[in-house]
Amino acid sequence: MSLTVVGSIAFDSVRTPFGERERMLGGTAVHFSLAASFFTEVRPVGPVGDDFTAAEFETLEGRGVIVDDIERVKGGNSFFWRGRYEYDLNIAHTEDTQLGVFGDFDPKLSQESKAADVLFLANIQPDLQRRVRSQCGDARFCALDSMNLWIDTAKDSLLAAIAEVDCVIVNDAEIRQLTGESNLARAARAVMESGPRAVVAKQGEYGAALFTPDSFFALPGFPLEDVRDPTGAGDSFAGGFLGYLDSHDGELDEASLRRAMGYGTVLASFNVEEFGTERVARLSREEIDERFATLHAMTQFEALPATAG
Amino acid sequence: MSLTVVGSIAFDSVRTPFGERERMLGGTAVHFSLAASFFTEVRPVGPVGDDFTAAEFETLEGRGVIVDDIERVKGGNSFFWRGRYEYDLNIAHTEDTQLGVFGDFDPKLSQESKAADVLFLANIQPDLQRRVRSQCGDARFCALDSMNLWIDTAKDSLLAAIAEVDCVIVNDAEIRQLTGESNLARAARAVMESGPRAVVAKQGEYGAALFTPDSFFALPGFPLEDVRDPTGAGDSFAGGFLGYLDSHDGELDEASLRRAMGYGTVLASFNVEEFGTERVARLSREEIDERFATLHAMTQFEALPATAG
Repeated sequence: MSLTVVGSIAFDSVRTPFGERERMLGGTAVHFSLAASFFTEVRPVGPVGDDFTAAEFETLEGRGVIVDDIERVKGGNSFFWRGRYEYDLNIAHTEDTQLGVFGDFDPKLSQESKAADVLFLANIQPDLQRRVRSQCGDARFCALDSMNLWIDTAKDSLLAAIAEVDCVIVNDAEIRQLTGESNLARAARAVMESGPRAVVAKQGEYGAALFTPDSFFALPGFPLEDVRDPTGAGDSFAGGFLGYLDSHDGELDEASLRRAMGYGTVLASFNVEEFGTERVARLSREEIDERFATLHAMTQFEALPATAG
Repeated sequence: MSLTVVGSIAFDSVRTPFGERERMLGGTAVHFSLAASFFTEVRPVGPVGDDFTAAEFETLEGRGVIVDDIERVKGGNSFFWRGRYEYDLNIAHTEDTQLGVFGDFDPKLSQESKAADVLFLANIQPDLQRRVRSQCGDARFCALDSMNLWIDTAKDSLLAAIAEVDCVIVNDAEIRQLTGESNLARAARAVMESGPRAVVAKQGEYGAALFTPDSFFALPGFPLEDVRDPTGAGDSFAGGFLGYLDSHDGELDEASLRRAMGYGTVLASFNVEEFGTERVARLSREEIDERFATLHAMTQFEALPATAG
């Protein structure tokens, strides 16, 4: 079992009503890898600049993440994002984005990364996603994320990339935008008709829904009284989801996809409890399993029908 | 077992991208009563004008709703609402509201209505809710809905009304506005600290969440590819929720509240499939139980922990 993720490795400066941090380790591949590291061997593929130091590598390696395919680009800076969140943490404002070395990202996969059993194409230009996909021919499960930018500017490429993966993991608004279909069930079906056998609609604080051709499943966001920084929640979800699937020996059937939704939900919830990677970096598998059990208990009810009135 | 609901009885003119209807039977007490009628004996209390005809009474009586406490006010018109929904059905626009006889509503409860085992104070002026509450001293479970208008204009009265009920059933945005707390778990706790032992946060297409002092539970909205008219979904939810609770012989504990959430979700989903009361008026208990079982299957996953990676 092994998991490769291709995406951004970044520094984030974030301000929320509950605090602020300058230049924290962040980026989609980072949040994803840390979350997935509790389940499997994970290899992030992405570029960093001269500003990326031993401290950042240590955070990743401290969780057993294999950093061999993190490309150090001389003479440039790492991707940088500055944002702030309102008191309603669902509302984010980007204040600065500097692509740095990520602007010329040309993914280079080692033999080990190409041999991945599970592949996650995080939100990058769809032609790059396709190129990586074609290099990982042995993957038994491949998932993709994207964003409104690529729907607006590279829709045909994105549709081609989607046709080549098993699963799409995107925000529900993006599924609607991509398909031009406001009904989420119809939109998910339209995506599946182009190839994927599963669609995961991320719904922020409301949780996430899983569509497959014959079934529907949904989990609420894990209820937390203290959310400090939502940055990376979706990537942590994807990391828990795909990390679990890669660790699963059996068939990737409906039951395992649902359990993966549970682990995704749990990892996303830990991620938002503190800033950046702070909480997940010192998380334990025991804490994950404990919260998974709590989430399970929160979603059960008796099917016994009531006596008709 | 018997259930009393106090609220509006109305005519609705509704336009959605999927059709339009003029002057359909509507209003909170109507949608609530029809949904609850599958579980128990329900008495709506509310005023209608000269425009309310035998046809409207027949729709209610056809479902066994007891119409004795529907007050016919001479020389006036019934509450009227005209609205349209965008292609994204989450976005509604009110085009006309005529309170009619509802503007001077002074609830008059018969002995039978006062003897209710379960009481629902639908969205009316909070002082009226309190007056009705005080007349139904035997109710073993009392729930309340409200809206932003009363939070803005009669907050102290509303807080007093909330302190006197067992359960608050409102939209999540209203819980946030009421408490000034953007975190929903904190906001729900704040409401419970004032008296109620349960808070149901309605979340539109995302479903609904149940907060109790020691527990959290949530259900997604039932996924539908064809939603034609969302009007009355929240009231249908409350009708299924409280109708089931009234029909339940045992203690109204966490397990029964969760099952009630299931029935609320199911009734709301049928309501939105067609315009106004069209779908629920010809619904059967068998269809309800079948969808309840489907919803149950949609929310289950195995708790078995994965092998650690």
